[in-house]
Amino acid sequence: MHRWRLDLEYEGTDYAGWQLQPGQRTVQGDVEQALEALLGEAVRIVPAGRTDSGVHAAHQVVHMDTSCDRTPKEMLGGLNHFLPQSIVCWHAQTVDAEFHARHTKHSKTYRYRILLRPARSPLRRDRVWHLRQSLDVGAMQAAAAMLVGTHDFSAFRAAGCQAAHPVRTLEDLIVCLSEDELHIQAHGTGFLRYMVRNLVGSLVEVGLGRQQPAWIADVLASRDRTQAARTAPASGLTLLRVSYLAERAVQT
Amino acid sequence: MHRWRLDLEYEGTDYAGWQLQPGQRTVQGDVEQALEALLGEAVRIVPAGRTDSGVHAAHQVVHMDTSCDRTPKEMLGGLNHFLPQSIVCWHAQTVDAEFHARHTKHSKTYRYRILLRPARSPLRRDRVWHLRQSLDVGAMQAAAAMLVGTHDFSAFRAAGCQAAHPVRTLEDLIVCLSEDELHIQAHGTGFLRYMVRNLVGSLVEVGLGRQQPAWIADVLASRDRTQAARTAPASGLTLLRVSYLAERAVQT
Repeated sequence: MHRWRLDLEYEGTDYAGWQLQPGQRTVQGDVEQALEALLGEAVRIVPAGRTDSGVHAAHQVVHMDTSCDRTPKEMLGGLNHFLPQSIVCWHAQTVDAEFHARHTKHSKTYRYRILLRPARSPLRRDRVWHLRQSLDVGAMQAAAAMLVGTHDFSAFRAAGCQAAHPVRTLEDLIVCLSEDELHIQAHGTGFLRYMVRNLVGSLVEVGLGRQQPAWIADVLASRDRTQAARTAPASGLTLLRVSYLAERAVQT
Repeated sequence: MHRWRLDLEYEGTDYAGWQLQPGQRTVQGDVEQALEALLGEAVRIVPAGRTDSGVHAAHQVVHMDTSCDRTPKEMLGGLNHFLPQSIVCWHAQTVDAEFHARHTKHSKTYRYRILLRPARSPLRRDRVWHLRQSLDVGAMQAAAAMLVGTHDFSAFRAAGCQAAHPVRTLEDLIVCLSEDELHIQAHGTGFLRYMVRNLVGSLVEVGLGRQQPAWIADVLASRDRTQAARTAPASGLTLLRVSYLAERAVQT
């Protein structure tokens, strides 16, 4: 058996999310189908983290096992031959059998893009959340600072979240303007289901002036999902980077 | 009669270009159809410049005449109601009858995006020209410098170009790296058909090391289209900005 690590990018608009679902088009389903076409055997892939319907990934990592012999070049070229245009594998390598895309220690960076202008943008369709109002960036930054650190994030957790416990460490939550877009970048070792989109939804409440920055700390402390704002739309969210800590130590 | 100026953005992938063609989907056709639905009368629009099939516009300007009375707000909201998702009107105003989107003195800025990495990008599909090889940016900048100014650009002019003469002034031709993309930005008061894409095609020949930078000057001097390289693909090109000189003087 060989264990492989595959690094992927995908455009999530046309997918019912990452995870296999009967009768639905999913990223996992399309990648496993391409691998089966290439290797001639059924393959199961395990991702660093699942993404929801409409969420994109500039970088997602999966592992899988196969008895087939392939060079990394053959795996990369063959897989991309069978993948649809909406998914690409940009790196493929064999790894130790101990490597596990989800369980091996890693951090993830998500970017959420909000388009701030009166008109929608055809060129950024399905990539941003479009808001016509202006946002108070300073207030949002003050609120974001209160969320950084290790907390019980139950207030920002989706109803269907299957995580064993709600404590997570948010290492960074950066709010910054980039031309006509506001970017919210979240970096941490683990995220609950919908957590980034729920954080964004509540930060926008602050940005719109409907809540003071300190309200965010109250919501967090309440551990009550009904206290936070609505979930921000999926289209604005991209899984930007998955970094395995051991790998980082080697590469830097 | 009222003359209107409309500022548009569009995603050109699904269009057979700007100009009306029987049996084809064109940007002009979709905008005129939306205006007709809104105003209840046939309307003809005149653009600052036509774009080719697959070329995008972050900013295109058109003018049109109508006898209908509408406030700018009504025009903007109504037009966007009838436009498809691939086109938006982001500014609408009534202007003097002397204003002509093409003939009133203006400059245009085009940006051409080249993705430089081994793997294609699902998230930037239809927005870039994907090249797997690396490019010598310094050589391309040296070549670009030789194209700036007023020249006979016949060597970079498409066969079907309907312009009366081939002399144009290129005010800027900037080549710069932006993460994993190379951007080529062209600014001038007028462009021949396929001119930017032909300039890009030849600059890439230099970037690949197949030609020396000075070769570009020879091609330009030859005034012979067969001396230049192939036309770069449409997907990488965006009309970024149209600036009317009078307007600039007022606004700055």
